[in-house]
Amino acid sequence: MASKESEAVRQHWAAGRKAVEQGTLDTDQELTDHRWAELTTEPPNVDYLAVPGREALWIVPHNAASDRVLLCLHGGGFVGGSRYSHRKLFAHLARAAGVRALAIDYPLAPGHTHPAPVDAAVDAYRWLLDQDIAPEHIVFTGDSAGGGLAITTQLRARSLGLPLPAGAMPFSPWVDFEAIGASYDSNRDRDAYFHRDLVRGLAWILVGPDGSLRDPFVSPLYGDLTGLGPIYIQVGGDEVLLDDARQLAEAAEKAGVEVRLDLFPEMQHTFQMAAGRAPEADDAVQRMGRWVRPVLGL
Amino acid sequence: MASKESEAVRQHWAAGRKAVEQGTLDTDQELTDHRWAELTTEPPNVDYLAVPGREALWIVPHNAASDRVLLCLHGGGFVGGSRYSHRKLFAHLARAAGVRALAIDYPLAPGHTHPAPVDAAVDAYRWLLDQDIAPEHIVFTGDSAGGGLAITTQLRARSLGLPLPAGAMPFSPWVDFEAIGASYDSNRDRDAYFHRDLVRGLAWILVGPDGSLRDPFVSPLYGDLTGLGPIYIQVGGDEVLLDDARQLAEAAEKAGVEVRLDLFPEMQHTFQMAAGRAPEADDAVQRMGRWVRPVLGL
Repeated sequence: MASKESEAVRQHWAAGRKAVEQGTLDTDQELTDHRWAELTTEPPNVDYLAVPGREALWIVPHNAASDRVLLCLHGGGFVGGSRYSHRKLFAHLARAAGVRALAIDYPLAPGHTHPAPVDAAVDAYRWLLDQDIAPEHIVFTGDSAGGGLAITTQLRARSLGLPLPAGAMPFSPWVDFEAIGASYDSNRDRDAYFHRDLVRGLAWILVGPDGSLRDPFVSPLYGDLTGLGPIYIQVGGDEVLLDDARQLAEAAEKAGVEVRLDLFPEMQHTFQMAAGRAPEADDAVQRMGRWVRPVLGL
Repeated sequence: MASKESEAVRQHWAAGRKAVEQGTLDTDQELTDHRWAELTTEPPNVDYLAVPGREALWIVPHNAASDRVLLCLHGGGFVGGSRYSHRKLFAHLARAAGVRALAIDYPLAPGHTHPAPVDAAVDAYRWLLDQDIAPEHIVFTGDSAGGGLAITTQLRARSLGLPLPAGAMPFSPWVDFEAIGASYDSNRDRDAYFHRDLVRGLAWILVGPDGSLRDPFVSPLYGDLTGLGPIYIQVGGDEVLLDDARQLAEAAEKAGVEVRLDLFPEMQHTFQMAAGRAPEADDAVQRMGRWVRPVLGL
């Protein structure tokens, strides 16, 4: 049974659905992001440094390895979320990994459509390389929209001649932009917020009317994953996006990429946001920490 | 007329009163603090450094003078608030002043009664002096309970032989622990949250059944303010604590202390929490910034 603390995630999403249905969603995006962040506790002994001239935040746990970096890509359906909404979550993750994290913002839809987000992520990756961080010491991670970006950013970077990072940890990744996964039906009554129409709507907002939902830099399911470093995927058992995770794992396997998929029963989309409060989220964060250290050569 | 953005402060307090009356106040203090913090925007170009071994946060605006410090004492009725609830507010203030800020936690009632909070504040001040920050380069600031502490901490520090800081900026200070101010009546229908019984209740929770509400280290109105550096007080016109500010200003004047009191019409208690959103809060923060720079020798 889901812990009481994880129920807070379900309640958060359920309140969001209600607000959407009643048209009472707050138009102040920073406020909406702040309310998402209330699920996460403040982890101790972490510094946060604003990067001059960039919409990016260095998250530096005390005693972290300074030459290993998680490039952190927040979720929010490409229309919300920020380095602040996910600051504490990524700090929990950086602590578990014992490394620094760079949390970035990327331009949001509908003001900015594809490829603006993935290009901003590539730009941040290039900046990390320019800071003399070795690509084999960088892992991409992110939830939902950021989980998809953790893969597409690699494909986009490679297409531009950049080296690949060591690996990726997408959690509750959004990769099936057509929303054709069977879990959209099987988990329809379990997912507290998402459903097929909503996800398809968000997908079209991202790509714009003339875009393609099968653009390999939008959906990594249609990209060439050959040669990518190992991928560790986490997903909640109650999400309609459950099959996104499965499809990504299958595509990676087919391409010969080392992949691991952990399913957390009864968990909602991005349940890791309850890090510091819910045992399932803490377990998930610890598993990511243990998985990523050897990938980063620690 | 109060700005739409400042109405959010009133609504925050009104929701709090409703929760108290209906007994639905969240028992998770970090969550309650987080909801208070949602009034404040994230200011850009500020670093946050956790102080090892202390429940304290360095707030470092880029290009800030590093040898000048605001010692920041959060509000919350001595039963709530934290360095995190006020992180963004104190960062706005540090930016306006162009200096570093140290935001501290202190032990909360009812688990910890007077003099635990004031002693923790003195301890933080002593630590600043140990870091070779000159007392004339330190100003104490804080809201509500922290506003009272900005004065009592000086009295307590002096009684222990420590030098006085350069001055203090209490805003919406809580200093009348008996709640005898006439504004408890005249603003009864304007203050969205506080009223006499609530404030007296909080006062007794702080001092305990055997304590005194006129202890000079609890209420600076009963302390000897002679010799203190200049004091700049801000208060909202709609607060029941309006007369707390007036009484503090009078007591300081009587003691020959340089004092300035700014009243912000139609504003609620600690309306500065809306910094970055509400023009009244931004105006207040900018006024504090301009006032404090010469006091700190800048």
